[in-house]
Amino acid sequence: MATRADTLGPVRTNYFTFAEPPNELELDSGERLGPITLAYETYGALNASRTNAILALHALSGDAHAAGVSAESDGVSALETGMDAADQEETLVARRRLGWWDNMVGPGKAFDTDKYFVICSNVIGGCRGSTGPSSIEPRTGRPYGLSFPIVTIADMVRAQVQLIDHLGIEQLLAVAGGSMGGMQALEWAVHHPDRVRSCISIASAAHQSAQGIAFDEVGRQAIMADVNWQGGDYYSKASPASGLAIARMVGHITYLSDEAMRNKFGRRLRDKANYGYDFSPDFEVESYLRYQGDIFTKRFDANTYLYVTKAIDYFDLANGHGSLQDAFRDVSARFLVIAFTSDWLYPSHQSREIVRAINANGGDVTYFEVNSSYGHDAFLLEEAVQTPLISSFLAHTLDATVR
Amino acid sequence: MATRADTLGPVRTNYFTFAEPPNELELDSGERLGPITLAYETYGALNASRTNAILALHALSGDAHAAGVSAESDGVSALETGMDAADQEETLVARRRLGWWDNMVGPGKAFDTDKYFVICSNVIGGCRGSTGPSSIEPRTGRPYGLSFPIVTIADMVRAQVQLIDHLGIEQLLAVAGGSMGGMQALEWAVHHPDRVRSCISIASAAHQSAQGIAFDEVGRQAIMADVNWQGGDYYSKASPASGLAIARMVGHITYLSDEAMRNKFGRRLRDKANYGYDFSPDFEVESYLRYQGDIFTKRFDANTYLYVTKAIDYFDLANGHGSLQDAFRDVSARFLVIAFTSDWLYPSHQSREIVRAINANGGDVTYFEVNSSYGHDAFLLEEAVQTPLISSFLAHTLDATVR
Repeated sequence: MATRADTLGPVRTNYFTFAEPPNELELDSGERLGPITLAYETYGALNASRTNAILALHALSGDAHAAGVSAESDGVSALETGMDAADQEETLVARRRLGWWDNMVGPGKAFDTDKYFVICSNVIGGCRGSTGPSSIEPRTGRPYGLSFPIVTIADMVRAQVQLIDHLGIEQLLAVAGGSMGGMQALEWAVHHPDRVRSCISIASAAHQSAQGIAFDEVGRQAIMADVNWQGGDYYSKASPASGLAIARMVGHITYLSDEAMRNKFGRRLRDKANYGYDFSPDFEVESYLRYQGDIFTKRFDANTYLYVTKAIDYFDLANGHGSLQDAFRDVSARFLVIAFTSDWLYPSHQSREIVRAINANGGDVTYFEVNSSYGHDAFLLEEAVQTPLISSFLAHTLDATVR
Repeated sequence: MATRADTLGPVRTNYFTFAEPPNELELDSGERLGPITLAYETYGALNASRTNAILALHALSGDAHAAGVSAESDGVSALETGMDAADQEETLVARRRLGWWDNMVGPGKAFDTDKYFVICSNVIGGCRGSTGPSSIEPRTGRPYGLSFPIVTIADMVRAQVQLIDHLGIEQLLAVAGGSMGGMQALEWAVHHPDRVRSCISIASAAHQSAQGIAFDEVGRQAIMADVNWQGGDYYSKASPASGLAIARMVGHITYLSDEAMRNKFGRRLRDKANYGYDFSPDFEVESYLRYQGDIFTKRFDANTYLYVTKAIDYFDLANGHGSLQDAFRDVSARFLVIAFTSDWLYPSHQSREIVRAINANGGDVTYFEVNSSYGHDAFLLEEAVQTPLISSFLAHTLDATVR
């Protein structure tokens, strides 16, 4: 039997294409998108009754490669946070092809692939194999760029519904994700209630806050201010790498916490005994951010950054309902909501708001607020505390399904 | 007699030039700077015994114009925060020539100009009348640009010491400031102990945190990534306005708080009934940030932003001492330390660190943590709670001086 430390070994990314004209996907904006390809991976085996499928949902910069070792050599989706830049550089080589949630998805892990069939797909609007602004627009034969329609979290989920249909799964045992992944999970539970037995929302929120919108807008402005952005039409030319790097630097600060940064970097200088008295990096935290910004530009498309942050900013589960409580009225799924004390991007009060709305409808919800100094990144780093919570929650959900 | 609501009326900026070669100011970096001009204003009258002088110290984007109505028509240093963009636009016209601390400096106010002689000067490295990177370098006849030497908080204070000498003041009744102004006040008290009777540090810290350095570095990278920056040599050409605007947007987020942004903007849309499904501003918070970024570029120099943030990042009062406690060993000033509960740029734990270091030396310190949802901006906005604290602290200090 596999031990907890095992990874899945080599995995392969699959592609599913649908919404061929004239059956394009209708989007929240009123526009239509098609054909659509979703890149996805699966881990473990679907059982005969098709009741053990779990959809794992990725965050802003994630992709379909959630677990195992990618068979594709360019699959740089390693866990990039929680290490200092030097450690990271070394570790990146060793881990570069490990999935972004490999510490949680695999044999004996929280999402135990000995028991469950785990699916993960890259969102529409993405740049890691799914249709997005860097894809070729069939009508023109050129990359969409800004002619790609704005997509929402609900649109991302609509596309995933078609993938789940394609896989022959009527009802998912669970939808689960952190950050934007949690938003997608909540969207599934609220707007596709018959398709979902349970929902796991981690370090997430029922709407993007004003502060969250503000940080995203800074990132978008940095990209659009880059002269290489060219209105989004840069695919055959130099890319807006410096704008995207700045957006990523801002993002990284919001993924950590004051305490995490103090513990991790403090005021330690980088490779020097005293201040340099110039504008080269003096402090380790500066080198770390520059490095994070730089490597991100090698694997991520700037236009996708614009589209996905916009989808996040538009997310408000109460939209179209009278209130968040009303949004959860017809929901039958069980919920597990996890928040982290030092997460200031999606603070725990936003998770508690979800819990209150479910409770007010007499719904089934377990809430756990994890003490952690890691900030928002805790959702990727605190596997030890999350594993028993999630294992137990999934086991109970499966029991209730079989009965 | 003046009432609390009065402002000082028209005030004029003065200029003091010193450090003429070969008597340049020696800087922490080892470089020498001269001649140096400091722009400064004074309010109220110096008493016969010269014991009632207070030096007010400005923050990152401030200037010499702390109070009253500027006689200069371009003096846009109004209080820009704490209003939404629409209110602000209107208010800016009415208040544009009011000083940045006018709600605290004036007849009957916290720094009562009926009793005290208040001085405020623009820091070296600044762009509002004092010598900085946009000043003409005498040697070349061209603006310094990046050939301007890196300055530190200690260097800013060294220049202020010469101004205080010039004004014939042996000992200041108080040095006082918020944010970077508080850093200068602490620097005065610790390294010029004979010149200072008391020190008021508001929403400040004894060192810049890793998170603070990180945000500053993002701003600097945004400026330096702007193609118009040109290595800092842009004064006769287009300025790096978009980079500076992005830096300011990041800054503005750190001056508010999650709660302040929720109260002030929430998810309210700007001039539209529904999402626009494009990348124009949808939310009020987006418009607010873009507006703040834009107006800032009309009154502030991008290179000064680089230099002043670098000075802030280098600030660590414990440097050259064994510890922060040791730094306060020979200090005789009385201290008033004020922090705000929702300030996450200079969190209250950083103010308490100062208080502990003073206490450990048996020093005289009063600490007040103000309940406020305004975030870091509270230091400019919460005058009602600060006024009695400061008035009483100054009155006691003056009493002790006279005795």
